Amino acid sequence: MYPKSLQQLIEKFKMLPGVGEKTAERYALMIMNLEKEEVEQFSNALMEVKTKIHKCSCCGNLTENDLCDICSDPQRDKGVICVVQDAKDILALERMREYRGVYHVLGGVISTNKGILPSDLNIKTLTDRVNENTKEVIVATNPTLEGETTALYLAKILGEKTNVTRLAHGLPMGGHLDYTDELTLSKAMENRHKI
Amino acid sequence: MYPKSLQQLIEKFKMLPGVGEKTAERYALMIMNLEKEEVEQFSNALMEVKTKIHKCSCCGNLTENDLCDICSDPQRDKGVICVVQDAKDILALERMREYRGVYHVLGGVISTNKGILPSDLNIKTLTDRVNENTKEVIVATNPTLEGETTALYLAKILGEKTNVTRLAHGLPMGGHLDYTDELTLSKAMENRHKI
Repeated sequence: MYPKSLQQLIEKFKMLPGVGEKTAERYALMIMNLEKEEVEQFSNALMEVKTKIHKCSCCGNLTENDLCDICSDPQRDKGVICVVQDAKDILALERMREYRGVYHVLGGVISTNKGILPSDLNIKTLTDRVNENTKEVIVATNPTLEGETTALYLAKILGEKTNVTRLAHGLPMGGHLDYTDELTLSKAMENRHKI
Repeated sequence: MYPKSLQQLIEKFKMLPGVGEKTAERYALMIMNLEKEEVEQFSNALMEVKTKIHKCSCCGNLTENDLCDICSDPQRDKGVICVVQDAKDILALERMREYRGVYHVLGGVISTNKGILPSDLNIKTLTDRVNENTKEVIVATNPTLEGETTALYLAKILGEKTNVTRLAHGLPMGGHLDYTDELTLSKAMENRHKI
């Protein structure tokens, strides 16, 4: 019903995660109301991301250069490697402004359901990075079944070479006890500590 | 924290209605995972919409040609004009597959709050279109305060030249009486009819 080029744009917007017919329609109609210059910038931004950005050759983080900002920072402690599932998890950890080590992006987690094997992940480069100077590998995969499996796997293959640690599980700060699920509560009880 | 070009794309996605930081981030990271060809198509689709699509010179509907598909369809009854706020409302009405008249897009509604006056809307072209061959003007603006105001205004300026009608208000089909607001119920009661 819509003109062809508008329909095409709606189809493109529908590729975005969580965007259905109605939302894509809203987005496309909004684009129509923008200035031509702004749409040009949007269009160029899309292409630039695809041409300029690639993975850091060391840790797999997103970067426009060969090494990402964190790997190329001399102030970062290369002896502590924090392993994350996804590049966007780095942002969450950096928001703490506490961690001074470096990162390693797996690009996913081991999942027997989805058929993702260790060989599909960025694990080989991690084992290559870990050497006698590595003091600690902090596994910060998500606290899900797959995340835990991956953490155990990494502990098994790296445990002899270095200390492998895992982020703590427990009550989230500011949360309520009665809204906390039983698995989290049981973890919090198990890992209780003396005040 | 993200590389510059990725940050730029996130900013662009944030221009879309209802898209905040997190959603824009998700969209941009998803674009990174697409094939280069697909991103190119997306980028081109954006530009095409802006260059190819404009308003129908007769009714204001979106089209790639001078007249939209509906205005240029000889089977459509030019004597019945349905007035809508927005081009996307036409789609909703066309989905009925019943209406055989033509449309007129106002491009908004009269709103004293937002300072939108009749002269800001596509009303002049409507009054020019209405002539002795026009049997009916159906006002299908939204059933809101502004929509009603606009309907009354149109009835006032067009009422002497032709029949001006308004879509019925009442219970939505498949709805529940106890979930219906009092304004709708009062309208449904007022417009009750003999079975």
